[in-house]
Amino acid sequence: MKLLKSNLSEKLIINKYLKKLNFKNKGTFDFENDGAYLDFNNKNYKLTVTTDSISENIDFFSNDDPKSIAQKITTVNLSDIFAMGALPHSYLLNLYLPNHINENWLNLFSNQLKKIQNKYGFYLLGGDLSKSNKLIVSATFFGSIKKKLELFQNKFDLNDDILVTGNIGESKIGLEILKKNNSLSINLNQYFIKKYLYPTPCKLGPLIANYVNSMKDISDGLIGDLIDMLNDKYGALINVNKIPLSVKTKKILNNKNNFRLEDLLNAGDDYGLIIISSKKNRNKIFNIANKNNINVTLIGKIISEKGIHFDSHLNIKNIKKFDHFF
Amino acid sequence: MKLLKSNLSEKLIINKYLKKLNFKNKGTFDFENDGAYLDFNNKNYKLTVTTDSISENIDFFSNDDPKSIAQKITTVNLSDIFAMGALPHSYLLNLYLPNHINENWLNLFSNQLKKIQNKYGFYLLGGDLSKSNKLIVSATFFGSIKKKLELFQNKFDLNDDILVTGNIGESKIGLEILKKNNSLSINLNQYFIKKYLYPTPCKLGPLIANYVNSMKDISDGLIGDLIDMLNDKYGALINVNKIPLSVKTKKILNNKNNFRLEDLLNAGDDYGLIIISSKKNRNKIFNIANKNNINVTLIGKIISEKGIHFDSHLNIKNIKKFDHFF
Repeated sequence: MKLLKSNLSEKLIINKYLKKLNFKNKGTFDFENDGAYLDFNNKNYKLTVTTDSISENIDFFSNDDPKSIAQKITTVNLSDIFAMGALPHSYLLNLYLPNHINENWLNLFSNQLKKIQNKYGFYLLGGDLSKSNKLIVSATFFGSIKKKLELFQNKFDLNDDILVTGNIGESKIGLEILKKNNSLSINLNQYFIKKYLYPTPCKLGPLIANYVNSMKDISDGLIGDLIDMLNDKYGALINVNKIPLSVKTKKILNNKNNFRLEDLLNAGDDYGLIIISSKKNRNKIFNIANKNNINVTLIGKIISEKGIHFDSHLNIKNIKKFDHFF
Repeated sequence: MKLLKSNLSEKLIINKYLKKLNFKNKGTFDFENDGAYLDFNNKNYKLTVTTDSISENIDFFSNDDPKSIAQKITTVNLSDIFAMGALPHSYLLNLYLPNHINENWLNLFSNQLKKIQNKYGFYLLGGDLSKSNKLIVSATFFGSIKKKLELFQNKFDLNDDILVTGNIGESKIGLEILKKNNSLSINLNQYFIKKYLYPTPCKLGPLIANYVNSMKDISDGLIGDLIDMLNDKYGALINVNKIPLSVKTKKILNNKNNFRLEDLLNAGDDYGLIIISSKKNRNKIFNIANKNNINVTLIGKIISEKGIHFDSHLNIKNIKKFDHFF
């Protein structure tokens, strides 16, 4: 771990808050080396890598609970790992810390990481600490996947099924409430804000990897990520009534609380999976999902006419991706 | 590669400046997936990982040549890889870009990366782009090393040799000139500033890995990094006259231009290697270094009395590490 060890506070960060996350794996050198060994010895599996960052005032608010920030940095990366059909193995953490970060913050943050690591079974391999005027949390995740498996995000055929896991739009509703663009009852506010602050990745990916053509996690809204997958080669026909919405979401859409279905499809971090697969594997996928208590919904199919098409009128004039970058 | 592709400018960054760096390696998916496969199939070797970041106004100046920034982010990471006795394999790049970064900047930056990749033989595996108010460049490097080799930074014996590669202090002199804390002749200014802006890693590490007990790159000054290696278990006795200095450095130290040897030992990014090895391997190490035209100097030995000791008077009152973090 490249950790500048001369300063008491930095040593303290490592020893008190980060070392417990290496789960005593030998290759980490207990964070006393500048580098680490990636212990990966299964010859039937290969390593997948993904890296993602979240920044203050872009991906979270300055005063967000550190537990939420830990939840987000792991979910954005784990959902990529799962979308590749892989299982998490280990990760690196790059922390850019402003002055206001204190021991209480580090305690809450690292405990939440530990909880998530235990849940999914992976360890902290190393990392790097820097001083910064804004809080940025970056991570690189390693996953393992069967050597023979190769999943492209944009390789599929005409008439393939388009499926999604979980419900769409709840995180976006929570974000709008937090931004005070909208408000519901206290209970509903709390429900949706929690969906925004504590997203979870969908672990179905590795379970169905043998039966799908492409997968992607929803990090830029259903439409945005689907456009990415279509890659300007194919189109998608979506059955609007099939788009999975929670009972609470349906209720507030009916009540016309300024939330429109169009906005929920066009933005937001749901972290469910978009799955594109051959019709012949449909039952297999549903069976595996059912056995694991994961909701999967068939929402449409791949067509030759480019772009996203809906089977009923939707008021989406400018289909655009939610864009973290600009 | 987790690259938010909806925006023309971002697509442009990827397509025009980053794709050329993947050297057409299949596992990169030509940066069209959120993740990548780490193709590493040699069963006699294992993967090493290191990650390091450099930030505007901490590790470089805002208006530094982008070629220098590319040189620094690769050197800080490559020198860790070499210090582990490994050869570079591939890397991930996380760029946090402020608004003032333009195509000219990206062109110079990416071309320098390409040049360095070609020189040492490694490719860009993936990465992540974020918007930021300050420029931060972060990288995660993968190296390959013989499976049986295990190099700790702080495992060695009493009376072991302490050696260093290259010359000490030139980068620090360059930094002080740039900070206008000091000035020499125009030619000397240029010489030392170049040493600061364009540091190079020392590739001796993997060539001598079988014959050393510990290695570390000098990123926090000779003394600071040696303290790290000693880890409060042993001490070091240093022969002051043996510390390798370039002819130019010796000249300016003699001229008393406000540069003191003490300051050069106590800070600075030289990126040479500190090598701790058994006496019995001394000749082997010198022979390999000679064959590869790399200067190695024996500067001292490991002793039982803790701390850093010098065989002649040096005015180092507060031995402290150069600290990037605080």
